[in-house]
Amino acid sequence: MTSAPISSPAPLHADLLAQWMLREDVIFLNHGSFGAVPRTVLAEQDRWRHRLEAEPIELLGRRQPELIAAAKEPLGQFLHMRPQDFGLVTNATEGINAVLQSLRFSPGDELLTTNHVYNAVRQSMRHIATRQGASYREIPVATPVENGQRIARTIIDGLSDRTRLLVIDHITSPTALVFPVEPIAAACAARGVELLIDGAHAPGMLDLNVPATGATYYAGNLHKWACAPKGCAFLWVAPHRQADIHPCVISHNYGQGLAAEFVWQGTRDASAWLTLPAALQFMADLGWERIRYHNHALTVWAHAMLCERFAVSPLSPIDGQLLGATATVRLPDPLTHLTDDQAKALQQSLYTDHRIEVPLFGWQGAQHLRVSCQVYNRPADYHRLADVITAVARDL
Amino acid sequence: MTSAPISSPAPLHADLLAQWMLREDVIFLNHGSFGAVPRTVLAEQDRWRHRLEAEPIELLGRRQPELIAAAKEPLGQFLHMRPQDFGLVTNATEGINAVLQSLRFSPGDELLTTNHVYNAVRQSMRHIATRQGASYREIPVATPVENGQRIARTIIDGLSDRTRLLVIDHITSPTALVFPVEPIAAACAARGVELLIDGAHAPGMLDLNVPATGATYYAGNLHKWACAPKGCAFLWVAPHRQADIHPCVISHNYGQGLAAEFVWQGTRDASAWLTLPAALQFMADLGWERIRYHNHALTVWAHAMLCERFAVSPLSPIDGQLLGATATVRLPDPLTHLTDDQAKALQQSLYTDHRIEVPLFGWQGAQHLRVSCQVYNRPADYHRLADVITAVARDL
Repeated sequence: MTSAPISSPAPLHADLLAQWMLREDVIFLNHGSFGAVPRTVLAEQDRWRHRLEAEPIELLGRRQPELIAAAKEPLGQFLHMRPQDFGLVTNATEGINAVLQSLRFSPGDELLTTNHVYNAVRQSMRHIATRQGASYREIPVATPVENGQRIARTIIDGLSDRTRLLVIDHITSPTALVFPVEPIAAACAARGVELLIDGAHAPGMLDLNVPATGATYYAGNLHKWACAPKGCAFLWVAPHRQADIHPCVISHNYGQGLAAEFVWQGTRDASAWLTLPAALQFMADLGWERIRYHNHALTVWAHAMLCERFAVSPLSPIDGQLLGATATVRLPDPLTHLTDDQAKALQQSLYTDHRIEVPLFGWQGAQHLRVSCQVYNRPADYHRLADVITAVARDL
Repeated sequence: MTSAPISSPAPLHADLLAQWMLREDVIFLNHGSFGAVPRTVLAEQDRWRHRLEAEPIELLGRRQPELIAAAKEPLGQFLHMRPQDFGLVTNATEGINAVLQSLRFSPGDELLTTNHVYNAVRQSMRHIATRQGASYREIPVATPVENGQRIARTIIDGLSDRTRLLVIDHITSPTALVFPVEPIAAACAARGVELLIDGAHAPGMLDLNVPATGATYYAGNLHKWACAPKGCAFLWVAPHRQADIHPCVISHNYGQGLAAEFVWQGTRDASAWLTLPAALQFMADLGWERIRYHNHALTVWAHAMLCERFAVSPLSPIDGQLLGATATVRLPDPLTHLTDDQAKALQQSLYTDHRIEVPLFGWQGAQHLRVSCQVYNRPADYHRLADVITAVARDL
């Protein structure tokens, strides 16, 4: 395999890492798992928490609806969602659970997803299917994949007459592929199948118009690529399905409509939600177009460079047409043959001994790593990763 | 009605309010709704948040199980729970929803509670009953109540042959009564009825041994009377029922046992949970026995004083035998006849114009208020409340 002549992008600013809370002695290549928050955004959350604690009933009680509405407004503009069509939740998995627990399935109904599904969502789907006497199935989408059309065709061909709900990732977690959601949504609509998109990694990584995806339900995290504080996510529901969807925690506002129900899910620290506008503004000040260009270009470059250094085939085209701001690369021999426990130990060693944070995991019987590319990352980070991994592989 | 010669307790320390985050120009008589956090506890949460943001994967990923275990340990000791028998959740309502959503009811099964149920729990129970074709019923426990035996008798007599699950409050929200849970639990056990105790207000207010209540399920908040940061609560489940109970958010650890499942409920800010030991230590340093004695004595005194000043009959014996650290008192004429909207406006005015935070709400067709008594409260707070309320009533 020969890599294309791909170059890395120029950084947006000189020292962006210093604007994040991350340890500066660690090469942090895992923005994708839990995100990371800029210092000014955490400071804004601290201010909110102090305000909430000074006047808890006034703010969390009497003024909560208006405060949540104000927090939702810039998010709605950012992702083209009307305020009445979405609610804030703790994480995308919670949004997905809210949908799955709200739906009613009959024996014979099929809950369908792909083998790239996030494991927590797999567990949720299996639980609901078992509980309601429905069935659960995964469509195998083989890697390497050629292009998006091929992915869409495989998934659409995988629908059956019994499929009641299809769950697909917008960006897959283990394989870091951007799935072509629009043609899949169109096929689902034509066949009367509801589509739940797990957009855990999409907001801020992709130029996203949630309703335009054609999904029936869309859950996304804001603490990942929108850099909000942890515990900030949303669930969007198509208007014709809103009456049937409730939060995981049913509370006072039950039956008052989707937006009202999600405003109150029991007493909680609402500061992450209330800080969302500050996070979106921080990123907007850097420039969303520039951020997405930088992160994608860095990803395409890092992906190609790592495939070459590891002498492995890519899971998707080397031109990066299926990548966003994350890329999964097979580990070089012999590391790719490690057991899961050995890979876990290696991941800990990368952090403890080499100060590199990068996730390792098995995919189709071989160990892989996944790199994230956020604005604070630099090409040298990935060169260092390649150096350490190849040295470890050599010395094994 | 003549009040008993009840005196108010001496404060534990000179200026405890300054140790809390609450505005010092507000008389805060509503610890019961969302709790309030001491400054040093919030500072500890800030430290946790900074640590988590500096090493998100190391702490929230690889070390999360051990960190949660460490946070649970002092709570388990405090409430006599084994670590394997409980998990941390965001609030008691979430714990209750987890139980309700995990159980399976058949047509004909009855979900039973009392008319003192917290409205969010009422909504959850109705939702689950409707969805599963079961029925929902509330036992009327009339006020005024004479004693705990009478409450227990009324509830036990209210069980039917169809009752599958009884939900009772340990301390009721609208009426602030301590329900006698042990005899009720014994009767449920004898009749094969599962008992879910909503202990939202109990931890820290009562000297609580959770397993000794005899409940099948027990949910409690820690951000109320244990003064943990908001978003900190627990769900305890009797060992023989643990295999069937799952968190509201099913995730990676599904099927690995109660404690493991609750350790991971999707990405979230775990700092409130991790700060729990500091909150428990803060209160332990004040002395739990002294706190409970002070808060109860202040409640019994304030309850009697307000009933006398308002010239209203108490909902429970004036000796305070059914009170913990909160008390509900009927508003004086003509305020007790306000509509709900008028009462809402009066509550806002009490805050905005008189700097008093106290909840007003209807109970059995009459408007009431509920006072909370935490260590930072002083007798003068309740005198001022009585002065303002009687003045407003006079000028209406």
